Amino acid sequence: MATYLEQLETPVPIVDLDRLTTNLDRMAAYVTLHGLQLRPHVKTHKSPRIAADQLRLGAVGLTCATLHEAEVMSEVCDDLLVAYPPVGAARLERLMRLPDHVRVRVAADDPASLDALGVAAKLGRRIVDVLVEVDLGMHRVGATSPAKALAVAQQVERASALRFAGLQFYPGHIRAHVNEQAPLLRQLSQDLAQYIDVLSDAGLAPPTVSGGSTPAAWRMHEIAGVTEVRPGTYVYNDRTTAQIGACDWDDCALTVLATVISTTVKGQGGIDAGTKALGREPLRAEGERYGAVLEHPDAVVSRMSEEHGIPDLSKSSWRPRLGEQVRIVPNHVCIVVHQFDEIIGVRGHAVETRWPVAARGRASNQTLESPAGRPRAV
Amino acid sequence: MATYLEQLETPVPIVDLDRLTTNLDRMAAYVTLHGLQLRPHVKTHKSPRIAADQLRLGAVGLTCATLHEAEVMSEVCDDLLVAYPPVGAARLERLMRLPDHVRVRVAADDPASLDALGVAAKLGRRIVDVLVEVDLGMHRVGATSPAKALAVAQQVERASALRFAGLQFYPGHIRAHVNEQAPLLRQLSQDLAQYIDVLSDAGLAPPTVSGGSTPAAWRMHEIAGVTEVRPGTYVYNDRTTAQIGACDWDDCALTVLATVISTTVKGQGGIDAGTKALGREPLRAEGERYGAVLEHPDAVVSRMSEEHGIPDLSKSSWRPRLGEQVRIVPNHVCIVVHQFDEIIGVRGHAVETRWPVAARGRASNQTLESPAGRPRAV
Repeated sequence: MATYLEQLETPVPIVDLDRLTTNLDRMAAYVTLHGLQLRPHVKTHKSPRIAADQLRLGAVGLTCATLHEAEVMSEVCDDLLVAYPPVGAARLERLMRLPDHVRVRVAADDPASLDALGVAAKLGRRIVDVLVEVDLGMHRVGATSPAKALAVAQQVERASALRFAGLQFYPGHIRAHVNEQAPLLRQLSQDLAQYIDVLSDAGLAPPTVSGGSTPAAWRMHEIAGVTEVRPGTYVYNDRTTAQIGACDWDDCALTVLATVISTTVKGQGGIDAGTKALGREPLRAEGERYGAVLEHPDAVVSRMSEEHGIPDLSKSSWRPRLGEQVRIVPNHVCIVVHQFDEIIGVRGHAVETRWPVAARGRASNQTLESPAGRPRAV
Repeated sequence: MATYLEQLETPVPIVDLDRLTTNLDRMAAYVTLHGLQLRPHVKTHKSPRIAADQLRLGAVGLTCATLHEAEVMSEVCDDLLVAYPPVGAARLERLMRLPDHVRVRVAADDPASLDALGVAAKLGRRIVDVLVEVDLGMHRVGATSPAKALAVAQQVERASALRFAGLQFYPGHIRAHVNEQAPLLRQLSQDLAQYIDVLSDAGLAPPTVSGGSTPAAWRMHEIAGVTEVRPGTYVYNDRTTAQIGACDWDDCALTVLATVISTTVKGQGGIDAGTKALGREPLRAEGERYGAVLEHPDAVVSRMSEEHGIPDLSKSSWRPRLGEQVRIVPNHVCIVVHQFDEIIGVRGHAVETRWPVAARGRASNQTLESPAGRPRAV
């Protein structure tokens, strides 16, 4: 018996399966065209099902931020990059407990973090590939000069259980499709070249140079030396991705289905999608506007509490009816997915499938009972 | 074998059990002193364990926003208020499937929503108590005049399976401890009196008048007619509650334990608590500052990405060390709890207990497998 959107309890994230397929195919075609390797970041979908599709379409492996993501993705992939500083005993211990079939790579930015990693790898009886994370303008993490990056790489080479695998950077500060930011892209290109040169001159030419992000994805082939990209958001896209020109509005595959739950306040229609569904992620320079009504894009959620959203109707002809369903295109889809345990896959108004957000949360090894139902060491 | 904070993988929410006990006792004492009934909102803790403590300390029942919260709390409570408009077929169906031992109350603001509720209650073979939600300045939901509130109450009385139980309002717009807002409190008091008078004159004197919120909690006894309060945040408190004077800094019971994971960028120490741990909830008029380091309160997280937080050190003498653990006092604790599956209870540096955030998420009846492991109808 078919289920239709009208039967779903809201708020719930729904994915247009045709748009998802198109988004996956487009990125696969882009990297093939430019001879880049694709290692998509799973932080956006947190789903082994979508990860399996990405791998089937040619991805060389997956990128994870959390160890829970890595554990869940190890069910469908044997080549995982944990693109996060391997700092902290519990994190290292958990990293080494990943299944033996998984080839583990991590990104490190500090020689001081490598002694513990080297010991952990030895005790874990595994070789860990290390990408040296470099800061090319994001100023979040990363070695801040070629000399410092070389020091990290040399420290890696000194550890018997570690192997230098190349460089990683994250160009999250660049909106590559905004013309004014073209100079930033050129600057990044020049800076990266210096890092590559210094390492190469020292006999440590980076086998992999991993960049990426969805906003910069379609321009990464212009950066000399880059071999791999790590976009995440492209599978679903969102208002931010569309606004900065990295996708079209019609490429937004995930929306939050919501219901108008109150129309008593004059000129207003409250919906049941608030911060606990949409998150409170602003669009740069747009202020407090958190998601657009797909059916009425000029109506933007401008006020929220935890379980309530209030669309701004001042520029819209939409007059909300009590009980009416609408789809909200969120500003930042990764945050929406992080709040839900399941995604509904639809075509038109029909529910076709559903899948768990299996890598949501932390499910750490200190957890007595895992929300995903898997037994965990205490 | 004892576990200590140093052994925990971060980020993880930890609760100072002594502060939690103090917070629970203080509110129980306040309502006893003033002859108010306490129906705490579970949205903050989403935990049947803490709810059971609240009931043991005299709470008359619990307040829920979502049906999943109500389902989980039905395990420890037989008197639940779903303080949310009962709109949408799926929501009504699920409401009626609550266990028979639960006395169900809902808040409604629109006569148009009551026909479906009345039918659902009849089919569900249960009597549903209805509080008429009124708008006393929050302008989010609620009947906007005494006449409209009376119309809702009379509509309730006409439905055989519904019973008029009183009035509900949410003073979320009032920071009751900020002196400038004293006039707002007086205005609210006068408005509420009008609603009570009009309903009483029509023979529908409200048995219950339910107000609340943590910010206004300690002043609700000044509002004539109020019989019940519904605070939620008071169990844990947060930076917002402290800033508006509804608790002291030392009453903040929940912090996010985080680790310094990168110190390569000059004058900066990045931690592993970002928007997927802290949320992006601003303090009013403080701008982009999302949580204070407990050990160094002048260091405030001012930049975040999903798994990274960057404390602003410009006003702090703190110099982060790689691998150092810190506790972050979040701006809005409800959002933090909503992102995690488990809470760690500590005394000093020792882990004493842990409990699941059992009512986190939606676990709707459309869910094939519940993250909490409970079987659900499909």
